[in-house]
Amino acid sequence: MITLASDFGARYPAAMRGVIARMTTSRIIDITHDFPRQDVRTAAFWLKQLLVTFPPSVHCAVVDPGVGTDRAALVIRAGEHALVGPDNGLLLPAARALGDTIEPFKWAIEDPDSATFHGRDVFAPAAARIDTVGVSAIEELEPVSPVDSVVDYQFPEPTIDDGRASGEILIVDRFGNAVTNVSGETVPIAPGSSLRVNDQSVPFERSYAHCPRETSLVTVGSHGNLELAVNQGRGDEAFGVEPTTPVTIEWTA
Amino acid sequence: MITLASDFGARYPAAMRGVIARMTTSRIIDITHDFPRQDVRTAAFWLKQLLVTFPPSVHCAVVDPGVGTDRAALVIRAGEHALVGPDNGLLLPAARALGDTIEPFKWAIEDPDSATFHGRDVFAPAAARIDTVGVSAIEELEPVSPVDSVVDYQFPEPTIDDGRASGEILIVDRFGNAVTNVSGETVPIAPGSSLRVNDQSVPFERSYAHCPRETSLVTVGSHGNLELAVNQGRGDEAFGVEPTTPVTIEWTA
Amino acid sequence: MITLASDFGARYPAAMRGVIARMTTSRIIDITHDFPRQDVRTAAFWLKQLLVTFPPSVHCAVVDPGVGTDRAALVIRAGEHALVGPDNGLLLPAARALGDTIEPFKWAIEDPDSATFHGRDVFAPAAARIDTVGVSAIEELEPVSPVDSVVDYQFPEPTIDDGRASGEILIVDRFGNAVTNVSGETVPIAPGSSLRVNDQSVPFERSYAHCPRETSLVTVGSHGNLELAVNQGRGDEAFGVEPTTPVTIEWTA
Repeated sequence: MITLASDFGARYPAAMRGVIARMTTSRIIDITHDFPRQDVRTAAFWLKQLLVTFPPSVHCAVVDPGVGTDRAALVIRAGEHALVGPDNGLLLPAARALGDTIEPFKWAIEDPDSATFHGRDVFAPAAARIDTVGVSAIEELEPVSPVDSVVDYQFPEPTIDDGRASGEILIVDRFGNAVTNVSGETVPIAPGSSLRVNDQSVPFERSYAHCPRETSLVTVGSHGNLELAVNQGRGDEAFGVEPTTPVTIEWTA
Repeated sequence: MITLASDFGARYPAAMRGVIARMTTSRIIDITHDFPRQDVRTAAFWLKQLLVTFPPSVHCAVVDPGVGTDRAALVIRAGEHALVGPDNGLLLPAARALGDTIEPFKWAIEDPDSATFHGRDVFAPAAARIDTVGVSAIEELEPVSPVDSVVDYQFPEPTIDDGRASGEILIVDRFGNAVTNVSGETVPIAPGSSLRVNDQSVPFERSYAHCPRETSLVTVGSHGNLELAVNQGRGDEAFGVEPTTPVTIEWTA
Repeated sequence: MITLASDFGARYPAAMRGVIARMTTSRIIDITHDFPRQDVRTAAFWLKQLLVTFPPSVHCAVVDPGVGTDRAALVIRAGEHALVGPDNGLLLPAARALGDTIEPFKWAIEDPDSATFHGRDVFAPAAARIDTVGVSAIEELEPVSPVDSVVDYQFPEPTIDDGRASGEILIVDRFGNAVTNVSGETVPIAPGSSLRVNDQSVPFERSYAHCPRETSLVTVGSHGNLELAVNQGRGDEAFGVEPTTPVTIEWTA
């Protein structure tokens, strides 16, 4: 099985599906092609959340502001999964979530048909070939050593003090829920209690609908982190935050 | 075969696909994940129109403002189809269109991984299990009795008098066609005649292109109901209507 | 395998998937359903680019301002591919790219369920039947003779003089890249040189990231044509162009 993810929007991804379908009858499942344009950070966040739900697969992900420069394709073996995409940090957070040990390889693919659409001309055929023969059988793959010569992206960690977490907003989802980098396990209080977000007192609830409609709340979202939300409204607007906005959360245990 | 529908937008649904792919190799077909946010009425309309085109399937649909409260998952057997989703009215109109008799069940799924994303943690795995073993083999399913203790949603019925129908707009589609709740069979006039919509005289045509460009018309749309439309324009704007706007249609047979 | 493309947006296409799934278990791959509304030219451009990446398939494409008028369904055999859709020029550019010789047929399908949604009621079932039995086995298909009685669409050709190409913008993609109708092979200069676009001097580069961020450039895009672009910005805005804008490109070999 091959999964596809990109910031290509609604039209270009069909070329990736076509190229793969020409090489293999394996199943193709789209993750999304709606990542914000060339926003590696946001795409890395979502890939980390979404790919772990899949059985062993080849995951092809492309958000690639540097397309056409001389960087190689990156292939990562992570547990029973493989990932393929540009070497710009996009794949590492998901790879770490998929496997305890990860093995990166570079694949210098020569003379692709275009210098501007490596999703179609480099990464999709690479994914199809990995899916067909496995990472080990591809002689052109060069193990990356040391591992840290791969471009990494680490999400910022919050500072946790006694009863206080200082972190930031990682992403805002389509519902306006603002996902922080503070794990829900950090906050040892019971649903129904209150906590303070940037000095504002807010109820901490098990889910959105435990508050009256259009009321602000904090909950532990599906990503496992604290989310600033509004029941049937937009948390980002109510709290005045966007991705990378610092956020301080305080509680009394 | 499993179909998926939701208001989750472009990113979250991949987690439903992943969870299902981990449990079964059955085919997954997306209906849409673009229902207007938390709008059960509009989603129920589209599910009723779209699911009837499918062969026997398990249909998993999630528009769920009440996620994380203590309502159970609803499973409905309708003809050879099964539907699974929240007990909020979303599934009933489609279920009635899919089968002459419908059997609802509740499924109390304990301790899902999240309280905020039951699409991933409750409904998708439920759909995969139903697809694999069938409704009858799942012991946790409790028949709902009486049937009317399920939350229902009934679309409003128009009032039909002699030569006059008083109804409302159900939905507006992406082309601006405003679909009424008045069945095309109500109006016994021939294409090419005129009728009156809210006191405005409008041609009644077989399809959009039977009028000059940017001309208002009424036609029987693909849903079987009267639609207020503009050839290559937007009917909702020309007629000044939106979902739930009352509409009166008069004709001379 | 059946591919689907349309301007139907996010909801109606599920009905096409359903109808096909009722008739065959063949694989269904979506090209896109996000073509600009009723814009045959833009859709024809993308179909030409995208369908050639696929192995032999039945391609069902619907952008159909004239739905419900008395035109027949058009079926084209192109190499080992078949295309099906309305007879309005949509399919011809892609068909020519898919096969050296193309054979068009008309299929008069009587009394479809609706006059407004032939994607569901005419073209999808036609595609499923072609996929199942092949074009030759369908007796209702009438060869079109002469071939030029099919509605054609030809993309405008540029005028090439010594060191100067006068053409136009074909489409603008989601990244703001403005794709011209001037083939990259027309311009015999090396990446890193300059050329003039509508009298403005602009670098000609191998790909976007060879320029500083937010700098204008011209490159040969994945379509094989010259593209007006901005590295991590919007070329259409920087160059003040949109589809059909004339563009003059000059160079010194």
